[in-house]
Amino acid sequence: MKLVALFTAAGINIAVCAVLLSLYSILRKQPGNVNVYFGRRLASKRSRRTNLCLERFVPSPSWILKAWHTTEDELLSVGGLDAVVFVRIVVFSLRVFSVAAIVCTFLVLPVNYYGQDRKHVDISFEPLEVFSIENVKEGSRWLWTHCLALYIITIAACTLSYFEFKAITNLRLVHIIGSPPNPSHFAILVRGIPWAPEVSYHETVRNFFTNYHESTYLSHQMIYKAGTVQKLKECAAAFVFFKTRFAALVASRILQTSNPMMWVTDQAPEPHDICWSNLCIPYRQLWIRKIAILVASIVFMIVFLLPVTFVQGLTQLDHLQESLPFLKGILKKEYMSQIVTGYLPSVILILFLYTVPPTMMLFAAIEGSISRSGRKKSACYKVLFFLIWNVFFVNVFTGSVISQLSVFNRITNLPAQLAKEVPAQATFFITYVLSSGWASLATELIQIFPLIWISFQRYILRCKDDSLTGPQSFPYHTEIPRILLFVFLGFTCSILAPLITPFLLVYFFLGYLVYKNQLVNVYVTKYDSGGGFWPIAHSTTVFALIFTQIVALGVFGMKRATVASGFTIPLLILTILFHEYCRQRFLPIFKNNSAQILIDLDRRDERAGKMEEIYDQLHTAYCQFTPSTTPESDLSPSTHGQDLEESNRGSEILEEGKPQPKR
Amino acid sequence: MKLVALFTAAGINIAVCAVLLSLYSILRKQPGNVNVYFGRRLASKRSRRTNLCLERFVPSPSWILKAWHTTEDELLSVGGLDAVVFVRIVVFSLRVFSVAAIVCTFLVLPVNYYGQDRKHVDISFEPLEVFSIENVKEGSRWLWTHCLALYIITIAACTLSYFEFKAITNLRLVHIIGSPPNPSHFAILVRGIPWAPEVSYHETVRNFFTNYHESTYLSHQMIYKAGTVQKLKECAAAFVFFKTRFAALVASRILQTSNPMMWVTDQAPEPHDICWSNLCIPYRQLWIRKIAILVASIVFMIVFLLPVTFVQGLTQLDHLQESLPFLKGILKKEYMSQIVTGYLPSVILILFLYTVPPTMMLFAAIEGSISRSGRKKSACYKVLFFLIWNVFFVNVFTGSVISQLSVFNRITNLPAQLAKEVPAQATFFITYVLSSGWASLATELIQIFPLIWISFQRYILRCKDDSLTGPQSFPYHTEIPRILLFVFLGFTCSILAPLITPFLLVYFFLGYLVYKNQLVNVYVTKYDSGGGFWPIAHSTTVFALIFTQIVALGVFGMKRATVASGFTIPLLILTILFHEYCRQRFLPIFKNNSAQILIDLDRRDERAGKMEEIYDQLHTAYCQFTPSTTPESDLSPSTHGQDLEESNRGSEILEEGKPQPKR
Repeated sequence: MKLVALFTAAGINIAVCAVLLSLYSILRKQPGNVNVYFGRRLASKRSRRTNLCLERFVPSPSWILKAWHTTEDELLSVGGLDAVVFVRIVVFSLRVFSVAAIVCTFLVLPVNYYGQDRKHVDISFEPLEVFSIENVKEGSRWLWTHCLALYIITIAACTLSYFEFKAITNLRLVHIIGSPPNPSHFAILVRGIPWAPEVSYHETVRNFFTNYHESTYLSHQMIYKAGTVQKLKECAAAFVFFKTRFAALVASRILQTSNPMMWVTDQAPEPHDICWSNLCIPYRQLWIRKIAILVASIVFMIVFLLPVTFVQGLTQLDHLQESLPFLKGILKKEYMSQIVTGYLPSVILILFLYTVPPTMMLFAAIEGSISRSGRKKSACYKVLFFLIWNVFFVNVFTGSVISQLSVFNRITNLPAQLAKEVPAQATFFITYVLSSGWASLATELIQIFPLIWISFQRYILRCKDDSLTGPQSFPYHTEIPRILLFVFLGFTCSILAPLITPFLLVYFFLGYLVYKNQLVNVYVTKYDSGGGFWPIAHSTTVFALIFTQIVALGVFGMKRATVASGFTIPLLILTILFHEYCRQRFLPIFKNNSAQILIDLDRRDERAGKMEEIYDQLHTAYCQFTPSTTPESDLSPSTHGQDLEESNRGSEILEEGKPQPKR
Repeated sequence: MKLVALFTAAGINIAVCAVLLSLYSILRKQPGNVNVYFGRRLASKRSRRTNLCLERFVPSPSWILKAWHTTEDELLSVGGLDAVVFVRIVVFSLRVFSVAAIVCTFLVLPVNYYGQDRKHVDISFEPLEVFSIENVKEGSRWLWTHCLALYIITIAACTLSYFEFKAITNLRLVHIIGSPPNPSHFAILVRGIPWAPEVSYHETVRNFFTNYHESTYLSHQMIYKAGTVQKLKECAAAFVFFKTRFAALVASRILQTSNPMMWVTDQAPEPHDICWSNLCIPYRQLWIRKIAILVASIVFMIVFLLPVTFVQGLTQLDHLQESLPFLKGILKKEYMSQIVTGYLPSVILILFLYTVPPTMMLFAAIEGSISRSGRKKSACYKVLFFLIWNVFFVNVFTGSVISQLSVFNRITNLPAQLAKEVPAQATFFITYVLSSGWASLATELIQIFPLIWISFQRYILRCKDDSLTGPQSFPYHTEIPRILLFVFLGFTCSILAPLITPFLLVYFFLGYLVYKNQLVNVYVTKYDSGGGFWPIAHSTTVFALIFTQIVALGVFGMKRATVASGFTIPLLILTILFHEYCRQRFLPIFKNNSAQILIDLDRRDERAGKMEEIYDQLHTAYCQFTPSTTPESDLSPSTHGQDLEESNRGSEILEEGKPQPKR
């Protein structure tokens, strides 16, 4: 692939993005699309804009300005802590790759370009390999620049990540302290209640907690299996409420009896965050489910190799012409072959990748998570592993190796193997950023599926009730892995093929605007994981850094730059130590609340005399069957608020690809 | 190696063991050796036996009878729960391998022996390979017997292990409930106390706990750095005492503040179990220490390959004769070559292995464990990994492969590789059981090093004070890995080379007698891990089973027994599920006490009005500087009890190969 082909691909993408962005700026002004583009605002009952004038059909950049000027506080108030953390992940990536872009452009790129004593042709007809580390000759004295760049990028990434972790930890603490009394702080979820003959679970729970947590036990509420005949089928699970936050924390953290499979206590999720259907799963089934899902995820990852291998086959032109002879004429044209090699493979891969998040969400649901945010976090991990494995590793290894399984045969020479393959595949990754990255942002902005759905409803089904497509919650499990995949690709390719960095910068900057706009306008926040996605981003960053360093080790070894290799090893060790330190210092706060904070909150509310009020709220907060959610009342007349709430629930299930598990 | 050579080796070992056992039965009757053989009894002040008659010089089996008749309750009272668990591990192994021996002798051995249509010579001159699975021809219809044997052995091992886990869990609970009030239940260890200017740590601790644990805080006790000027150098660590066991449990389990590196709380070890020198290590240093020790252990494992490779070289006779030409004459004799091939390699390996436990104990001490039992458990893990890696894997892979590192190159065909190598090395493992196993028991019984040391003192130094070699605590970190190594070898070889099972049975039976005798007579119990060694044994058993199944898969694949392969896979999955279930069901009890039990104990003591008495004891229990342990008073006149106590401490350090860390 030559530089000009890359520019062709970039040009096509810029044009596509520009058209889509303009289209968006027009579509968003149409009153009929208000459900699609202003779902959140609609849900929070702001005024609909219904002015009809010419302005409606002229593209305008006003939304960009609005997105740019949205502050963190506004974002926090409309999208919760998770939205803030998500935007912070994008900003963090933008910052890190700004540093990387500067370092790579001024330090690494010239060294690569003049790496061999050869006559340079017109720069736009240079093959892309000339800009990558492949062009640096063996034993070159200039490889220290790559090592220096690696040091600068690592130090910048670690420093920024550390301060980000610190800031997000603080945000989380402020969020806990500052928000109004949270029922989940007073409640625990008890599972594995032992069954006793002649005594109901209800009495068993009361007896146990009045006996062993006498002074702090307030009340409890059983969980029922959802079904037609309610309040008959009772589960071995209950929410137990305590008089103070501290008592609930204590009860959730300790082993209750000497059988760890009974009286299993957990912090209760927030009321809106509960997966009611999963609460009734017998506790002793959970570990089997977890193992089964782990196995299923791995199998899914491996089976997915087939379409990816097919996509890889497409990049080889002669292959394609052989199997589809009628294409021969078309592919003879220079620009067509450039499009095919530079663009088409990514598009096909992306289409296949659309099936992944719903599958992983389904897996996460079957796993038995008690909270929706936990389910989303689990799906996020699964999608992330999947993407990094199937987009990065499989592409790297299928690039030259025919049998994928022979990958496993080389463990000790893995760095050398990677060093050979990663630069060779860098071109593919650059075009992947262009096509998948940029296009995904544009399609996210234009909300292609809801738009088609609403048009279908309106013009084909002649349906007039718009509220059926209620606002959805932000698909963190799709978007976070996507961003982290680009972070991973960025780190891995930056010093090997620095041309990737400008495209990444464009991606992250566009992402910053688009996601801010979407979080403010489109998505509603129904539950919050309290910034729980940041540790995933942090771990992925460190993993990407370590992986980059291992690849660099291999490259330096291949290029016989012993000094550069020698200097990379301490960097590797320091990065691992940095990660371990962050894990020790920050991670526990994301898992548990601290006694100090909860006790202080308890005292504040006690002094203010608010406790009785809070106790009253507790009983209604964790109500499994509200009138609007019982199956019978689904079609009964209800207020607008309930109706919206109801449609949210429907769309939530639709969006998360999760049929209600039937047992 | 032929059967007759194996019998020669067995004969030599039986003779050596018989001589050593007889020698022991004489030596133990000599009054001068009472310190060596009756250290525990001496410490508990039972009568010395000083009768001088001819009987003293006649070997007698009375100790065997006494050991046989020692009950579990006696063992519990003299050796604590750890001793009981240790003997139970031996009995468990004995039971499992009895089943394995029966199955393998009556089912597998005949199939192996008649596996190929060949003329059988005199059975004693058959090579050992005839008795192993190597003799079964490819595609044999009889390989289902091996699969059946694998099923029977796995089911027997899992069933026995499950009931053992259950029984030991119960013993642990009874131990906690039944023993007198334990100060460690009321105490927690606090580390990472923040330093404040103008306020001493003492006041900081008091302020924090009176503020946040007002109703339950009793008192606290600072920890001081050991040195010449005491009570000046104060550490950021303290023991904090609570009014109830439950309050201490709560305080030890929760995150105190929103900085997880400060106010770090842990359950306090029992007073005798504390590693005082490690308590002063700044908490933020600990994670670095742990990583450093992990790296050091791995490096040690790899460097150790050198002597092992040398030992392997010795088994090749022609190699030996080449490098040491003067041996040619000696090695020509049949029985000499049999001794060299069957015996010498193991002896040299054993001598090298003697350096391992002290090294690992040193590593475990540097790691910063707060309790002696924790230190021993950590060393136990390290020695176990070391042994299984260096005795088993390295031997298997160096058997035919010249470069050890190429091991890593074959991951996918590992089962096939193991299937080829394990049976080939089975002969070595059989002789290893003979030499290392049996001989180690005999040397353990005869206490060779203390005996030499006391003789040296008495006859060379003319020293009359016997008490310098005080009784030691049982070296669990040496003996448990040794037994588990044999369990591992036993499982791995049982269906491949069934001849190993009788030798193992002898080993475990002898071990049962020897260890019971030693626990009752020789070693004192200074601290107890509360049965914490059993989970190690359980995990190793399951790992050995899984490993055996993988090797069997490889063997069945090589022998083209697809049905047997197919039946092995569900067994593998079920074994993994079994392990996971046991982890869920039992392991948490070994890590934390349950609220129910502690609350019940609290109530019992409150009703009995014992609490005040317990509070009084707490202050003296955790006293860092008793008169006899201050450096100044080391040589001051002291009572006999203190003297013995002191010498215990000296020997403890000596035995555990751990110089007091100086900081």
